[in-house]
Amino acid sequence: MAGQSFDLVVIGSGPAGQKGAINAAKLGKKVALVERRAIVGGTCVNTGTIPSKTLREAVLYLTGFRERAFYGRYYSLKEDISLKDLSSRVDMVVAKEIEVIRAQLRRNGVTTFEGTARFVDAHTLEVEGGERLALRADYILVACGTRPARDEHIPFDGSRVLDTDELHRLSRVPREAIVVGAGVIGLEYTAILSALNVRVTLIDQRPVFLDFVDKQIVDCLAYHLRSRGVVFRLGERVVSVHLEAERDRVVAELESGKSVHGDILLYAAGRKPNTDLLDLGAALLAPGPRGKLEVNETFQTAVPHIYAAGDVIGFPALASTSLEQGRLATSHMFGIPARHTPSTIPYGIYTIPEISMVGPSEEQLTASKVRYEVGVARYAELAKGHMLGDEDGLLKLLFDPGSLKLLAVHCIGERAAEIVHIGQAVLSLGATIEYFRDTVFNYPTLAEAYKVAALAGLNRL
Amino acid sequence: MAGQSFDLVVIGSGPAGQKGAINAAKLGKKVALVERRAIVGGTCVNTGTIPSKTLREAVLYLTGFRERAFYGRYYSLKEDISLKDLSSRVDMVVAKEIEVIRAQLRRNGVTTFEGTARFVDAHTLEVEGGERLALRADYILVACGTRPARDEHIPFDGSRVLDTDELHRLSRVPREAIVVGAGVIGLEYTAILSALNVRVTLIDQRPVFLDFVDKQIVDCLAYHLRSRGVVFRLGERVVSVHLEAERDRVVAELESGKSVHGDILLYAAGRKPNTDLLDLGAALLAPGPRGKLEVNETFQTAVPHIYAAGDVIGFPALASTSLEQGRLATSHMFGIPARHTPSTIPYGIYTIPEISMVGPSEEQLTASKVRYEVGVARYAELAKGHMLGDEDGLLKLLFDPGSLKLLAVHCIGERAAEIVHIGQAVLSLGATIEYFRDTVFNYPTLAEAYKVAALAGLNRL
Repeated sequence: MAGQSFDLVVIGSGPAGQKGAINAAKLGKKVALVERRAIVGGTCVNTGTIPSKTLREAVLYLTGFRERAFYGRYYSLKEDISLKDLSSRVDMVVAKEIEVIRAQLRRNGVTTFEGTARFVDAHTLEVEGGERLALRADYILVACGTRPARDEHIPFDGSRVLDTDELHRLSRVPREAIVVGAGVIGLEYTAILSALNVRVTLIDQRPVFLDFVDKQIVDCLAYHLRSRGVVFRLGERVVSVHLEAERDRVVAELESGKSVHGDILLYAAGRKPNTDLLDLGAALLAPGPRGKLEVNETFQTAVPHIYAAGDVIGFPALASTSLEQGRLATSHMFGIPARHTPSTIPYGIYTIPEISMVGPSEEQLTASKVRYEVGVARYAELAKGHMLGDEDGLLKLLFDPGSLKLLAVHCIGERAAEIVHIGQAVLSLGATIEYFRDTVFNYPTLAEAYKVAALAGLNRL
Repeated sequence: MAGQSFDLVVIGSGPAGQKGAINAAKLGKKVALVERRAIVGGTCVNTGTIPSKTLREAVLYLTGFRERAFYGRYYSLKEDISLKDLSSRVDMVVAKEIEVIRAQLRRNGVTTFEGTARFVDAHTLEVEGGERLALRADYILVACGTRPARDEHIPFDGSRVLDTDELHRLSRVPREAIVVGAGVIGLEYTAILSALNVRVTLIDQRPVFLDFVDKQIVDCLAYHLRSRGVVFRLGERVVSVHLEAERDRVVAELESGKSVHGDILLYAAGRKPNTDLLDLGAALLAPGPRGKLEVNETFQTAVPHIYAAGDVIGFPALASTSLEQGRLATSHMFGIPARHTPSTIPYGIYTIPEISMVGPSEEQLTASKVRYEVGVARYAELAKGHMLGDEDGLLKLLFDPGSLKLLAVHCIGERAAEIVHIGQAVLSLGATIEYFRDTVFNYPTLAEAYKVAALAGLNRL
């Protein structure tokens, strides 16, 4: 078996793997990256973030969704939106992302191998692709990611009963859909489908969803999804799923005795780490609960020269945090100081409307007995809200009524995931909400919401 | 003549007047606001910012402009866009803005008078509306705004030869247009018209335009306008304009001997303060050059209890700065401390593509002999850029290569006027570009450009 030696071998070419590999290469290290698929990018580019967010933009455009404020709630730009309309755009964007990543890896001299990596010992990986290959490494970064979890009682067939990796196989837009799992992924697809006028039933075992998000924001989202016909079945467990051939539909039976039907069933209840493919035991590593790899604050596993980053280490499992974890892991590996500020990580949830937040929710502050005051701005008060046809959005600032320090920003509405970074900067740099009062904002923008919210908050004192 | 007394009388209900009046009312003062038009809002709401920015959004949507990256450069959503398609949307937004302002004034107990205000003495204004009225005031805020300047050699007729206040009178979208004046207003209309596939010739006496904007950004704008067929005639003076009846067109003769034609001519060469309507002499005030009112840093005129704010005091004459000036003027008047930070005022220019900036340009830093380094991110490197179909945008950071302090942000592209506020916060709070390196940004967003630009900048050191 041929062998090669590297300073670092990275397993997986998703956000964590890419940024980890490139960061190490920029530091002058000899880096290899192993990817089991024929194309780079991981779940993010190929079946996850990029396709779903592009699909979302395509749906918002083709349905004329944003224009309904002007042309009425039944306005639709294109009467009969085909899967081809949607997928052609997704394919274009995915192809561009892959090209960007390939070019970055090439430019930085990262050697890429196609194949499945498996530990032989704590410093050696065997890659099984076209040929067998042994890679020896001083350091290893495990960024192997996850794949959709599957419930073995559910008869997946890739056409009517699908997981989220298979959604692109749909041949037409369904009339009715069952979505199982009201996590971020399930909610994002529910939002997209409902904007396409698909009637969605959303099922989750848990009685509440998005429990890490501020309640007022979650309530807004629920309100908007319901207004588009989404039916929530929370605290309900799917006990069986079958195809009803005569009526050409999927039926899910719930533990409570209810029965739910749809043209398709999309299973979005969690993802499972790919650690089972790695033969971790050969490196004297053992996966943690549900197959995750546990790491310390510098992203080291129990074997200190083996690091892990990205979805494989669990929450928050966002592309944004994975990018950062990859960079931080390899910086630590090679002795470069890097700052990690988990308290000011923003969360972006690409539902319709969009949600974003930084800092604790009202509920979290109350539970920790932190005193706070609230300042809210509604997009309906903003000229830009009127222009963009979004009068339902809102931005909420939580702040300390004594020091006036900003504690958190919660936003739902157009461009939420962009404008949250203004508050994030003020929060990270330890400033007060007087900053927003005393600052000139471009007019008209949604960013002005910060000023309106700060003035409203100061008026409450 | 009936008379009433107030703590403050405000002349004009545009952004400066509104915010000045409301701020004083919130402080418990008895406030009157005089507006010579039947509707509130000033130029901003009625003929300026709001209509032009709404028109811009409507044109971007109806032309499918943003989708051309996906569907080809000749893609158009609506083949034959009528003025009605555009104006109906503008009317809806304008009506909403007026309602918001009216409600705010009413809620805060501001007494409004319709009529033209004129000084009788330094503490008394006469209002000539339905009836004659004298208003006595301890303080006066002059926020009377401007109106389009007109060259008397140009035969304005309100249908083929128009100023920017008359643009809504157009009966159809022209094929060819002459725009005179390459200031912000002229460029914004040039951008809108060219997105509608109107062939525009843009004329300005000055050899360069937007000289307060970073040269690289201006060059980008020029490139994009030219690619949409805009012809620049800079350093050229219009000596005469006439209608050529037989060919149904407008012809402008230039000093250089060139002759330029179009279906319409839009005159956007500056605006003229409305101070000539005020009888300033009666208050022992004299207008400055070109009719402007000169004020000190607390917005007081030569007569200390008479303040002025908004377009009437000149540059930058933006709705955003006017809002702030109105608030600052009335805070000072009634002894409330307020902070004014002109060095971190952002500029938003709603051309297509959009431009925004905070801090000095490269040229200004070079002229002041300030050492700087540059970090650039192109939207083509960002997943969100691909999704939104904007691969031409760019974000440029200027920073001190020694301390790494952020000095300026220059941006052109989608959402530029929103995301500039992230850099503005970092700049205002005195942080370095390491902030962007060490911060997690939502993915995918355009805000990520800050991280890409900061890493590029740090790599250049």
